[in-house]
Amino acid sequence: MKTAATSLTVRPEERYAFLDLTDDLRRAIKDAGVTDGMAVVFCAHTTCALLINEWEDGALQDFRRHLTELVPHEGVYYRHDDFELRTQNMHPDERKNGHAHVKSMFLSATSHAIPVTAGEPVLGTWQRLIFFEMDEPKDRTVTFHVIGS
Amino acid sequence: MKTAATSLTVRPEERYAFLDLTDDLRRAIKDAGVTDGMAVVFCAHTTCALLINEWEDGALQDFRRHLTELVPHEGVYYRHDDFELRTQNMHPDERKNGHAHVKSMFLSATSHAIPVTAGEPVLGTWQRLIFFEMDEPKDRTVTFHVIGS
Amino acid sequence: MKTAATSLTVRPEERYAFLDLTDDLRRAIKDAGVTDGMAVVFCAHTTCALLINEWEDGALQDFRRHLTELVPHEGVYYRHDDFELRTQNMHPDERKNGHAHVKSMFLSATSHAIPVTAGEPVLGTWQRLIFFEMDEPKDRTVTFHVIGS
Repeated sequence: MKTAATSLTVRPEERYAFLDLTDDLRRAIKDAGVTDGMAVVFCAHTTCALLINEWEDGALQDFRRHLTELVPHEGVYYRHDDFELRTQNMHPDERKNGHAHVKSMFLSATSHAIPVTAGEPVLGTWQRLIFFEMDEPKDRTVTFHVIGS
Repeated sequence: MKTAATSLTVRPEERYAFLDLTDDLRRAIKDAGVTDGMAVVFCAHTTCALLINEWEDGALQDFRRHLTELVPHEGVYYRHDDFELRTQNMHPDERKNGHAHVKSMFLSATSHAIPVTAGEPVLGTWQRLIFFEMDEPKDRTVTFHVIGS
Repeated sequence: MKTAATSLTVRPEERYAFLDLTDDLRRAIKDAGVTDGMAVVFCAHTTCALLINEWEDGALQDFRRHLTELVPHEGVYYRHDDFELRTQNMHPDERKNGHAHVKSMFLSATSHAIPVTAGEPVLGTWQRLIFFEMDEPKDRTVTFHVIGS
């Protein structure tokens, strides 16, 4: 039995960008030398999500449209963005990203656990591991942890 | 320490069917011979979900109604289903299931990690592991991976 | 390689209370003596959720407001709460909490898997592990399972 973790820095190009991390997941499993076990993928941020779904541009657009209609990033009051009232966690380059925190908590997609057999993640035909940015673009860290034999 | 994976094929009878997989989870843990560790359950599809909640028909109906009102499967345009425009991942028996992809990404319930103690999953009194189909019925694969001592 | 599980009883003070469990997670990892591996946190209830996000009162209020608007706990019919019709899982102190089951299934946040390196969870700067109660307050159990070397 062994355990190995690697981190990856990704840089989405814009708000609401999707990035395909499936090959990075496969590589982390290979590099860990685990053939049977599991992989955990974890996103260390509060305004992003990790999705497991089909990479088809239309489906991703449909998802983004529904999510932004449900939790709009403009025209709605967010207490998190009310800098007159807010006192906690304020820092110099604070962004108005209350919408992205709400989206992120709705999705609750910070981590996934994926079984590994024969050195591969047991993803289905159409499943891809997809990073989804909901805030303005900046460097983001994703960690892969692999455990098994 | 050991690690073991088993796969199960399930066949929902209709769109929006629920299937109780709790006994299958318990059996996978027994078969793995793990008394202390964890179990991961993973659904290898992009239009299904795995829920952990109470199996009470009314609660499941309430959930289904809220979800289908939030993301209707008819009367709404899905770019994924616009076969005049779409070019990616088209295959002969392509279904109009854009709604199910959006639902699936909203739920983000492709996997769960469940601690195992004394050879049993630490599920609460009312918790059941429930497979939820959002597309037309067909065979589906669910993988249980158990790791521990 | 070792594996260790501990359970914690928490007592939210009111419906929609948030509780910060980050220090409990760190303690469970220390107590397990695992420096490299992963931690699973699991909530054994059907009307609660575990969130990983920023603890900023405004952001948590924004999230709660959006969620309760999406799935109101009053003024909407829930089949789960129709005790004239319902036959399953009825017990003497049954509560009208259909709304909380729907919210819980929407969030699908019963467990999280978090990599551990150098004896610490790989949480980002703003990430906290947050218990979220959606039903009337009562004792709740949260389990931490840690595995690794």
